[in-house]
Amino acid sequence: MIHTIVFKDDRLSLLDQRKLPLVEEYFECKTYKDVEFAIRNMVVRGAPAIGIAAGYGAYLAALEFVSSNSFDEEMDKALDILNKSRPTAVNLMWAVEKMKKLLADNKAKSNEEKTRLIKDLAIEIQALEEDMSLAMSKNGADLIKSGYTILTHCNTGSLATSGLGTALGVVKYAKTQGKDIKVYADETRPRLQGARLTAYELDKEKIPFKLIADSVAATLIRDGKIDFIVVGADRIAKNGDTANKIGTFMLSVMAKEYKVPFYIAAPSSTIDFDIATGKEIEIEERDESEVTEIEGVRIAPLGIDVYNPAFDVTPYQNITGIITEKKVYFQENGKFNLE
Amino acid sequence: MIHTIVFKDDRLSLLDQRKLPLVEEYFECKTYKDVEFAIRNMVVRGAPAIGIAAGYGAYLAALEFVSSNSFDEEMDKALDILNKSRPTAVNLMWAVEKMKKLLADNKAKSNEEKTRLIKDLAIEIQALEEDMSLAMSKNGADLIKSGYTILTHCNTGSLATSGLGTALGVVKYAKTQGKDIKVYADETRPRLQGARLTAYELDKEKIPFKLIADSVAATLIRDGKIDFIVVGADRIAKNGDTANKIGTFMLSVMAKEYKVPFYIAAPSSTIDFDIATGKEIEIEERDESEVTEIEGVRIAPLGIDVYNPAFDVTPYQNITGIITEKKVYFQENGKFNLE
Repeated sequence: MIHTIVFKDDRLSLLDQRKLPLVEEYFECKTYKDVEFAIRNMVVRGAPAIGIAAGYGAYLAALEFVSSNSFDEEMDKALDILNKSRPTAVNLMWAVEKMKKLLADNKAKSNEEKTRLIKDLAIEIQALEEDMSLAMSKNGADLIKSGYTILTHCNTGSLATSGLGTALGVVKYAKTQGKDIKVYADETRPRLQGARLTAYELDKEKIPFKLIADSVAATLIRDGKIDFIVVGADRIAKNGDTANKIGTFMLSVMAKEYKVPFYIAAPSSTIDFDIATGKEIEIEERDESEVTEIEGVRIAPLGIDVYNPAFDVTPYQNITGIITEKKVYFQENGKFNLE
Repeated sequence: MIHTIVFKDDRLSLLDQRKLPLVEEYFECKTYKDVEFAIRNMVVRGAPAIGIAAGYGAYLAALEFVSSNSFDEEMDKALDILNKSRPTAVNLMWAVEKMKKLLADNKAKSNEEKTRLIKDLAIEIQALEEDMSLAMSKNGADLIKSGYTILTHCNTGSLATSGLGTALGVVKYAKTQGKDIKVYADETRPRLQGARLTAYELDKEKIPFKLIADSVAATLIRDGKIDFIVVGADRIAKNGDTANKIGTFMLSVMAKEYKVPFYIAAPSSTIDFDIATGKEIEIEERDESEVTEIEGVRIAPLGIDVYNPAFDVTPYQNITGIITEKKVYFQENGKFNLE
């Protein structure tokens, strides 16, 4: 069992995902700004895990401002700062909104009472995410048959959710059901979450797998080597269009062309009903050093231009089904009816 | 002008492509075994450049065995060793076959005479490749319009050919024609030839470009940001099926789906008329450390399995045209008639 987010004695410890797989070290957050740093710099990553971390970040902010005369204003600022630490993850927004609503509903209470309520909510968010993760993993695992070879992208396991995982949770649960499965894990450039994190989790869980460069997947899909593709999501539009780690869209095109089932696994909190289609999803562009340097080693000439989008959008037409904690949504009459 | 392969005073110097882009250093080959090492370890890479290096390797072998009573047998062994240094490059086979034929045709001559003939042939192979490179670049450049944004994969420039290049030669020639062009260069995992080498060449040639992770190309193609895709080839089957750097096939599927012209640029020596289709092309699997380590830094857990094919095969159906030094081949009645 991997402990990604540990909250104890009013301190938040995050398994530092920049240092995995070779070093297992916790990053200690003493203030909400530490949490903001941790989210921004991907000490913690994966939409659900980011949401959980932000919840505890709110609590650390409350501890900081509990004696302030302008507690609500300070909290509002702190929540806005947390909210801006990563632009694409809807769970972050969702956790922040829950906190804002809590504060709005409890204006009359004392700072101490508000702080206690925030703590309870932060713990509840983590429990909720972990329960959802398990339910989703069960729902998805039922789609997997013994003998399947499964392809996945990026990291969507315990490290991304603090629970069993989203897409990788589905894979792990199929394994616990005693199914004979094999996995191909995309390394997932530029940040190599597949090579670093998914490989780490699969290795720990003793699930047979092979690591591949992202470009290898296309040939495996064409050659009938893949029975099932499952990936996570950072944001899902109302129509099912899905923003996920760069590289997902390409897999979805290959899957459609070669008729391989292609599933998204994500908690329903990832669905953003305020956006009708993927066109409205803002795509985060990250620093060019993610592409030009690996572990601080320069791999490209100095002073060149880089285009480094963190996500792409997969149109719902390429998606076989969306696995959530509630159910698996399939297209009906060529449309998803998410609710 | 980049000098990739320098032959002078009976010594072969290869611009060490393992050390680019930050270090410009030559690897000196004193024996044919040095050349075999250089090819195997990608000091020199790119099908045409490998063929040229193998030619000089044959000459270095001849110098070594010139006093031997069993010159022809020793040469035969040396040529076989050179031939096995990389499995997919047809130019390597082609250069070795030319040397073998030379020896077969000149059995009666003295070792010294044979050695001189081998030297002349090695120099001729380089001149031939460089002339072909220029002719091919011209043929391809005519397909490019001013204002185009071009996508390319791997490295196919001077570093791969010793001449102007194949696919990148086409791009460079369009630039010398005064056309206003921009380039997206795939970084090309696992060995990052795009990030290291293509970026190095484009930077030197002052052609505006952006470096991208391989997975980014799919979205650019879908969103109409790419007008023209051109890549090289390691081997082309008689029907036009093309083996090239892993990742090429995926681009070809995207190009077909989104109606972007997709060209192969390669000297006609890359066409292997002995193989009818791509199914017969042997795909080299390379060491897993190419995926699990970058610059000697481990990025994945220890002891895991990796699948690391160096190439993939693009079916001719996905190819708009094949640019050679002779002409540009287009499909006629759904087929390529290569000759």
